[in-house]
Amino acid sequence: MLWHRGQISEDDGMTLLTSDRGLTLGDGLFETLPAFEGKAFLADAHLDRLMASAARFRLPLDRAVLARAVAELAGADKSPCVIRLSVSRGAGQRGLALPEPQTPNLWATRSPWTQTMAFGTARLATSSIRRHATSPSSAHKTLSYLDSIMAFDEAKQKAADDALMLDGSGHVASTAMANLFAVSGSTVMTPPATGALLPGIMRALILDHAGALGVEAIEKPLHPRDLYGADLVFATNSVRLVTHVMALDGVPLNSSADGVMTALQTLIKRLIQDETGFRLDVPS
Amino acid sequence: MLWHRGQISEDDGMTLLTSDRGLTLGDGLFETLPAFEGKAFLADAHLDRLMASAARFRLPLDRAVLARAVAELAGADKSPCVIRLSVSRGAGQRGLALPEPQTPNLWATRSPWTQTMAFGTARLATSSIRRHATSPSSAHKTLSYLDSIMAFDEAKQKAADDALMLDGSGHVASTAMANLFAVSGSTVMTPPATGALLPGIMRALILDHAGALGVEAIEKPLHPRDLYGADLVFATNSVRLVTHVMALDGVPLNSSADGVMTALQTLIKRLIQDETGFRLDVPS
Repeated sequence: MLWHRGQISEDDGMTLLTSDRGLTLGDGLFETLPAFEGKAFLADAHLDRLMASAARFRLPLDRAVLARAVAELAGADKSPCVIRLSVSRGAGQRGLALPEPQTPNLWATRSPWTQTMAFGTARLATSSIRRHATSPSSAHKTLSYLDSIMAFDEAKQKAADDALMLDGSGHVASTAMANLFAVSGSTVMTPPATGALLPGIMRALILDHAGALGVEAIEKPLHPRDLYGADLVFATNSVRLVTHVMALDGVPLNSSADGVMTALQTLIKRLIQDETGFRLDVPS
Repeated sequence: MLWHRGQISEDDGMTLLTSDRGLTLGDGLFETLPAFEGKAFLADAHLDRLMASAARFRLPLDRAVLARAVAELAGADKSPCVIRLSVSRGAGQRGLALPEPQTPNLWATRSPWTQTMAFGTARLATSSIRRHATSPSSAHKTLSYLDSIMAFDEAKQKAADDALMLDGSGHVASTAMANLFAVSGSTVMTPPATGALLPGIMRALILDHAGALGVEAIEKPLHPRDLYGADLVFATNSVRLVTHVMALDGVPLNSSADGVMTALQTLIKRLIQDETGFRLDVPS
């Protein structure tokens, strides 16, 4: 299902100018979020992040139109779905200079979300591809995603499920698609969002709500050895919610903080139910 | 003018699947090259580079089809033009995993080339955005070009024409769109292609042919201070050919190697004429 120029259709294609900079140069942004019972989950947080990224990339966007696209696509059907909202800078002349004026192009697609996506497990493999704070595409969800694709592919070649991507100094940044947390006792730690990683919506939710679970959540630089030393490691993203990381580079990780994982699952299930009315059936 | 699926048209748009990974993730490659008198200039070198990049990114391409697209679009008209050949990985399911099998999507566009593009001048401003050897998009012409766009835009905001992009160690990588050379006496130096910069076709041409001009061309790491200390600095790319760099961060650069610049212009004009029959009218 496609939302484009205010219309919802079952089209799987759309006509694009060959000078559309999203297509020619990866010049644009996206957000991915689940919707349940016809309501997008944490839509405001996703739109806030998209608008903040748009300001960084000097992309003039109308938040109300973006919100309408998400709401209309979420509301098209009550079945759980993933909405991907995409924005390109629109048509431009040859070369890199930003078009003047800019006429951004936006569209959104809807695809099924299934409970098997949530609360899964993953094995990570360390990627040779890093995320650098001096690269704006490291910290935003941009249409220029090729480094992450290749990091993910490198992990798959090593029979892992996702990549551990380090920053320029060799510290943990994130996976190719998720933020990382290490649990130590009743503390959960995640690397600070200083430019080398996407500040995830699920990451922020955990940092905000952990206190109510009796868990201290802090931002702290993590070295790969801290993942081996942790009681438990998990990854977060908006579609998969919380993923238990079982191994890094073929070495099993500790898994002795089940209480924290159960508490996080319970928290997220409650927030989804409160916002959308949807009850996740995942056993906790 | 557009080449798509073997057909040339005057279309400025094309229908694309919304799951086309070139559009959704910047998952693809491109080449830009000029054509004169109906013949693409240095097409083999561009296709060689594209095929090498495709191997790196595990993108299965048919060189013969790419060559035909370039030749047919170049041959459509004798007027000088710029051909942009674009390749995306084609449609894929949601997520980062490479589709199996892959069905790449390729298209090429043609736009006018004018002599004013060649042998110009530029002022550079040092960008906060760097090119890192641990980022494969640094060393290839990919559809994930957003870092370079933002570096270029940052330079424009500083009233410069292009960005000086450094590598992770603070050495010179390239501009946002061109390779850089520093002239010292009868030696021209350019940073080695060790992953932080695109190995340009014009760069290779100068490294290959400089000897015949009585100029020694070497690959050598360059620090920004080496640009201030050089007799002359120039940038190369396939469309603009050789650009004289006049200033860096508002400070004029030396310009005392006119003989080298004249020799390079003469070389490139001769190579264009030999390959295509076209005579550039640029005064030398």
